[in-house]
Amino acid sequence: MSRSAVVPRAKANRLQEKSAQELVDATETFIFDCDGVIWKGDSLIEGVPETLELLRSMGKRLIFVTNNSTKSRAGYTKKFESLGLKVNAEEIFSSSFAAAAYLESIDFKKKAYVVGETGILEELDGVGIKHIGGESDAGKQVTLASGELMHHDEDVGAVIVGFDRNINYYKIQYATLCIRENPGCMFIATNTDAVTHLTDAQEWAGNGSMVGAIKGSTKREPIVVGKPAAFMLDYIANKFQIRKDQITMVGDRLDTDILFGNDGGLNTMLVLSGVTTKDMLCSDDNTIAPTYYTDKLADLLCVGKVAA
Amino acid sequence: MSRSAVVPRAKANRLQEKSAQELVDATETFIFDCDGVIWKGDSLIEGVPETLELLRSMGKRLIFVTNNSTKSRAGYTKKFESLGLKVNAEEIFSSSFAAAAYLESIDFKKKAYVVGETGILEELDGVGIKHIGGESDAGKQVTLASGELMHHDEDVGAVIVGFDRNINYYKIQYATLCIRENPGCMFIATNTDAVTHLTDAQEWAGNGSMVGAIKGSTKREPIVVGKPAAFMLDYIANKFQIRKDQITMVGDRLDTDILFGNDGGLNTMLVLSGVTTKDMLCSDDNTIAPTYYTDKLADLLCVGKVAA
Repeated sequence: MSRSAVVPRAKANRLQEKSAQELVDATETFIFDCDGVIWKGDSLIEGVPETLELLRSMGKRLIFVTNNSTKSRAGYTKKFESLGLKVNAEEIFSSSFAAAAYLESIDFKKKAYVVGETGILEELDGVGIKHIGGESDAGKQVTLASGELMHHDEDVGAVIVGFDRNINYYKIQYATLCIRENPGCMFIATNTDAVTHLTDAQEWAGNGSMVGAIKGSTKREPIVVGKPAAFMLDYIANKFQIRKDQITMVGDRLDTDILFGNDGGLNTMLVLSGVTTKDMLCSDDNTIAPTYYTDKLADLLCVGKVAA
Repeated sequence: MSRSAVVPRAKANRLQEKSAQELVDATETFIFDCDGVIWKGDSLIEGVPETLELLRSMGKRLIFVTNNSTKSRAGYTKKFESLGLKVNAEEIFSSSFAAAAYLESIDFKKKAYVVGETGILEELDGVGIKHIGGESDAGKQVTLASGELMHHDEDVGAVIVGFDRNINYYKIQYATLCIRENPGCMFIATNTDAVTHLTDAQEWAGNGSMVGAIKGSTKREPIVVGKPAAFMLDYIANKFQIRKDQITMVGDRLDTDILFGNDGGLNTMLVLSGVTTKDMLCSDDNTIAPTYYTDKLADLLCVGKVAA
């Protein structure tokens, strides 16, 4: 049973100046979700640059995680730069990286078939894993004349499914064949988010759709490497040798960010600058409670004032 | 709990000449699945014309049901004709028809958004239900520049999801918006089959993929109108005023055809000419047992010989 499922809702406390100070003092590493915390679509959220600068000046380690697999870490570095934020590729953990890191961690030697965008392909290149599919299968059509069959590569040992705006039936069938017919073929999902902030104007169907399509034809459950699964957190904790109770996870989603943090034994802070409203947090249906909640990341700026 | 879940596997008996005679005698109406029973892709299965002719000559009512929603009843009539079989549109119940009949049965007055092919559109036209989407949204692309949002029709009161070889992200997002944002909007699936016989050479990812994509972004379960849900059977039994224990369901799939028949209180006969092998039927994992199983529909021809 997950820890968060038994935390009563009443334990979600609004962040105050005093508790903000205590939280920052107790935290060695902040893990930030990006969409809804740092930015919304292509717009920076108010007060973010100053807050990150303050935390860096206090010697905190900052890590940025995102379930969005469309970019690689290198791609995200450019996005941070374009918003005026200085972040190194080593500080970024995208689910595209997580997919590649997972395969590397199990010493995967076969080929991957990718339903997804350039981020996954770049990260696979980074760890030297051969791949097919991805953007080169955009626009492909299937002919369904009598006797027609699709051939697939029997050396594919993993299908990676990430968000793909060019999802099509060719890719669905290719992925399905690999998973159903190649013995031992893994089904890896970068994440299963229902919706995502592709633009700042609307919520868009997320990778839950692409993963749902492959689940529907294979009747298989995927290995999830992004939030809320444990893989990325364990990877980060091992890599930097951090104690989990000295990490604070900051996110805007209860069922990915806060669940990820609670299940991993981290402190958690929900910001209301993304998909979750206070009503959703306080609803009787919600069983996931963060340690604290607050309107936006910049509410941590009060710490600087108390300290000054 | 479904009836079939508690029927022990050992109760599946191979059809013999004597039991075939008893089964036919006890049956007023035969319901046949099409793919895997009557044809495989575009090829007629051996002995089918003679068997149907024999049963007709004995005064049996014949009904053909198919979860494949790509054609309307009119479209299927042509397919039967092209294979040399004479079947009336009134004898055909496709899941495309079931979707339209379901909406008609609840006096639906709004608009339907369709993820699917021409069969559904033709059947909606047949009952006078306005629709958008379907084939006219094939090839549409989504622009994801900053500030971009997709508008959707607030008068859509039902999203119908059927097999769609031109599934794309535009359709997924449009369907998602209708279901998430239009109050009371229904989510209707023609079926949730994992795989389907689009050609006779290979199994193809089925409508389970299209439905899975919409489930993944909406977190909603669909109303299923095709097999194994009860809607189509109840509709047929009402329309023709047939007692369910005088119906025999003949199909090639345990988890749709036989489950549909068992749950509905019908006699069931599994044919091994489609997706199910004898090993699958007899596997310890299988909890769904037909009344009888046999190699192919034409095994009923022995009845004629006994009677002669």
